[in-house]
Amino acid sequence: MAPPIISVVGKSDAGKTTLLEKLIPELKRRGYSVGTIKHDAHSFSIDHPGKDSWRHTEAGSEVMVVSSASQAAMVRRLDGELTLDVIARDYMAPVDIVLTEGFKREDRPKVEVLAPGDSELISEPADLLAVASDDTLELDVPVVRRDNATAIVDLLEERFLKARTTAKIELVIDGKEIPLNAIMRAMMFNTIIGLVSSLKGGRDPGSIEIRVVKKPKG
Amino acid sequence: MAPPIISVVGKSDAGKTTLLEKLIPELKRRGYSVGTIKHDAHSFSIDHPGKDSWRHTEAGSEVMVVSSASQAAMVRRLDGELTLDVIARDYMAPVDIVLTEGFKREDRPKVEVLAPGDSELISEPADLLAVASDDTLELDVPVVRRDNATAIVDLLEERFLKARTTAKIELVIDGKEIPLNAIMRAMMFNTIIGLVSSLKGGRDPGSIEIRVVKKPKG
Repeated sequence: MAPPIISVVGKSDAGKTTLLEKLIPELKRRGYSVGTIKHDAHSFSIDHPGKDSWRHTEAGSEVMVVSSASQAAMVRRLDGELTLDVIARDYMAPVDIVLTEGFKREDRPKVEVLAPGDSELISEPADLLAVASDDTLELDVPVVRRDNATAIVDLLEERFLKARTTAKIELVIDGKEIPLNAIMRAMMFNTIIGLVSSLKGGRDPGSIEIRVVKKPKG
Repeated sequence: MAPPIISVVGKSDAGKTTLLEKLIPELKRRGYSVGTIKHDAHSFSIDHPGKDSWRHTEAGSEVMVVSSASQAAMVRRLDGELTLDVIARDYMAPVDIVLTEGFKREDRPKVEVLAPGDSELISEPADLLAVASDDTLELDVPVVRRDNATAIVDLLEERFLKARTTAKIELVIDGKEIPLNAIMRAMMFNTIIGLVSSLKGGRDPGSIEIRVVKKPKG
């Protein structure tokens, strides 16, 4: 199930990374796991040119994973930008909340960071949860100091983390999420729960994933 | 659906990466998409210390994605080595075949590369598909020259790529794949196909994924 996505935006050098460095440990201190997403216009690689895993990607590997006991890293070739929804669905499912650095153009709840002396916001007012600024500003949303991670995490917790529902179902056909109304959702939910109930591990499942491929690839 | 996983193994400097650099483009030339997995005992990072995305991971982000129009990279913290099955399931689903560099201890079909003058194999004979060696060796499996990617891809195609079935179903409960016998498989397959058949996009689906979360997290 995709976690909530909140964007930390601001002009360059306003202090986005520094704020994220405070928000992440504060969320973790409260027991939430955190994923982060950053946009990078440039290319990047796990390894340096000439290193083995870089050579796989150079040779045409679509997706390359380097794995150790303490971390796994992946590089996937793309034909265009992934949306935050796709990134969250494919890579962030096990975390409780996702924070992005940047992505100001996506229509997400946002915390905007302002550099000292700057009062010009780049976010749509409707998206704004809070503004982090060390100046005194009169705004319709909470204004907190740039080092006040506690106040921002209070807001995130109230708005996004306490509200997580206890049962959800998601249906993806050919890579697209299919919207379900309440009745379809309940019918599918009860059918799946019923289907697995007599299987090993299916008596009281926390989560169920079913993947069907009907057509061969290619 | 997880793609087949074949390991290229061999002693250090036998020529594993060089062989992979030939196998990947040959597979791609024949229309297959390829994923690669490499083990790395050391730590590694997408960015260098001090760079922004590295700072997210340092601050405690469980999973960090850096995204651009041409690629996406991810780093995830782990409490222990991922198995090849888990890597393939979580990261390799869209590719046709996965090649690993190393992972000699996992019980996978293997191509072993031997350095010139070396005839001592490190693989279990039962796992061996082929041996890549520039020497003349008498073995029970095909021995091909180390630069003969064509012959090895012929074998891979015959054994793993032509055999992909046209319909599969996979059930994961609480992160564990549940084995299904033919009857359970058919029952679940037909139920799911029936369930989605009247939904938008569900008439003739290529693939279906359903994710249910019954218990709240944490």
